[in-house]
Amino acid sequence: QRMDNLHNEGRRKFIEFPYVSAPHKKLMVDLVSMLDTRFDSHLLPCTLPPNVQYCQNQGGTSHASLHIRSGHVSSPIDFILGSWIHCQLPNGGALNITSLSTYLNSSTDSPNFLMDLIFSSPTSLVLILDLPPRKDLVLDPDYLQKFYEDTKLDAQRQLLEKVPEVKPYFSPSLYIRSLVSPTAILVRIESEGVERMDEIIRDHVGPVAKQVLQVWLDKCASEKREVAETERDYLQKRDKLVRTKTIEIDLASSLPRLFGPETADRVIAALKECFSV
Amino acid sequence: QRMDNLHNEGRRKFIEFPYVSAPHKKLMVDLVSMLDTRFDSHLLPCTLPPNVQYCQNQGGTSHASLHIRSGHVSSPIDFILGSWIHCQLPNGGALNITSLSTYLNSSTDSPNFLMDLIFSSPTSLVLILDLPPRKDLVLDPDYLQKFYEDTKLDAQRQLLEKVPEVKPYFSPSLYIRSLVSPTAILVRIESEGVERMDEIIRDHVGPVAKQVLQVWLDKCASEKREVAETERDYLQKRDKLVRTKTIEIDLASSLPRLFGPETADRVIAALKECFSV
Repeated sequence: QRMDNLHNEGRRKFIEFPYVSAPHKKLMVDLVSMLDTRFDSHLLPCTLPPNVQYCQNQGGTSHASLHIRSGHVSSPIDFILGSWIHCQLPNGGALNITSLSTYLNSSTDSPNFLMDLIFSSPTSLVLILDLPPRKDLVLDPDYLQKFYEDTKLDAQRQLLEKVPEVKPYFSPSLYIRSLVSPTAILVRIESEGVERMDEIIRDHVGPVAKQVLQVWLDKCASEKREVAETERDYLQKRDKLVRTKTIEIDLASSLPRLFGPETADRVIAALKECFSV
Repeated sequence: QRMDNLHNEGRRKFIEFPYVSAPHKKLMVDLVSMLDTRFDSHLLPCTLPPNVQYCQNQGGTSHASLHIRSGHVSSPIDFILGSWIHCQLPNGGALNITSLSTYLNSSTDSPNFLMDLIFSSPTSLVLILDLPPRKDLVLDPDYLQKFYEDTKLDAQRQLLEKVPEVKPYFSPSLYIRSLVSPTAILVRIESEGVERMDEIIRDHVGPVAKQVLQVWLDKCASEKREVAETERDYLQKRDKLVRTKTIEIDLASSLPRLFGPETADRVIAALKECFSV
């Protein structure tokens, strides 16, 4: 009962997305509900402590919500992670990030799902949208064929590429560039005004994100894949390294800056526990 | 003696680059001579049959030169491959490709060097320039650090990115996209006129290509790296797969179309022998 309350309250806060535009919020809620519809009965409640599920800095200028649900032992899902961060910037603007990612366990070697929307201003967005592979694609052309060619993921990337405001984005982290797939959508979108950004989210980013998540649901999360014992060691080692490096790159330097060292330590410790790293 | 003549004649034809612009030819000759200066005494003569070192189609509309030199057994170089192709197109234009690539053997796991200049017209170039890794970078952050971060290869990519005519290029082959490094230069360059393209080759592409080859010479080809027995099996398997797929993607469909099935079979068979696949 107490667990359920903890879950429900954190979830309410998460699903509110209180600092982003209406189309941006709608997209996030739609994606979360696609996952819920498919997996709800296979997902455990979020058991993070309340001060990790939601936190803010001392000055009240930075706010964040973190929502993590593990999969049942019988499920191929290790956990699903959703989050948002809002930070007022010294220049009067604000940074707004919303993220949704899924992590499968080593019963399958199928790709994960990853989406980050990073607004450094209401008219400037970096979008990262991908099914990151969990194997070396160079060594496994069948895997490349099955998950990336047969699913026509590149057509989704090409759809977005046609929008005039969309430009390729190169992550400053070479590790991030290495871990994404060859059909990854890594783009920067600069719009003339807020209305146009709303339109781009609604008419272009939204449909593409939903289609990529649908591919993940249909081809990665559902199908049984045999993973041999030796393969499993490799998979676990690789997954673990990816998770460690992701925390290091995404959070280890930015969280202390935005939320202070105490909150940052608490959140990162909770994440490391979920990530088993 | 006969071997030397075979080598010298093929080399003369190769190094002529008879169908490309003066700055393009100069760049290729400069790169080949950088390799020669460093390795000449470690490289064996080219022993390909004359009708593989140079070939043309029946109508005389397609011409190609292929120059391959293996390394001495004591050398870390498996072989170095240079080639050019010239094909008149039905629309009156011509396709011109020049390539230079190096293949290290499994005594080292250092990256290879790869450069393709693909002109579909005198003002339209696709450039592929990279040190393709020979390991899964996601699993080996130290390798990523050593060969790609510490060498500042991305600064070279960024230099070219600043040239207004340079746009990112996405290979239609997802396998090619998978095998390049996170600092790979994959760009399309469309210039207003031929003079401007000459300028871009001379002032931008040339210096960047030379710098990337210099990094390869200094950091990849020279240094000794310990490769454990188990690692070596992995490396050989991965190298072999990359070579097989590269022939399949680059040549298996285009060569028969451009040179007829007989010449194509002869060239591909010779390549497969060099590639040990």
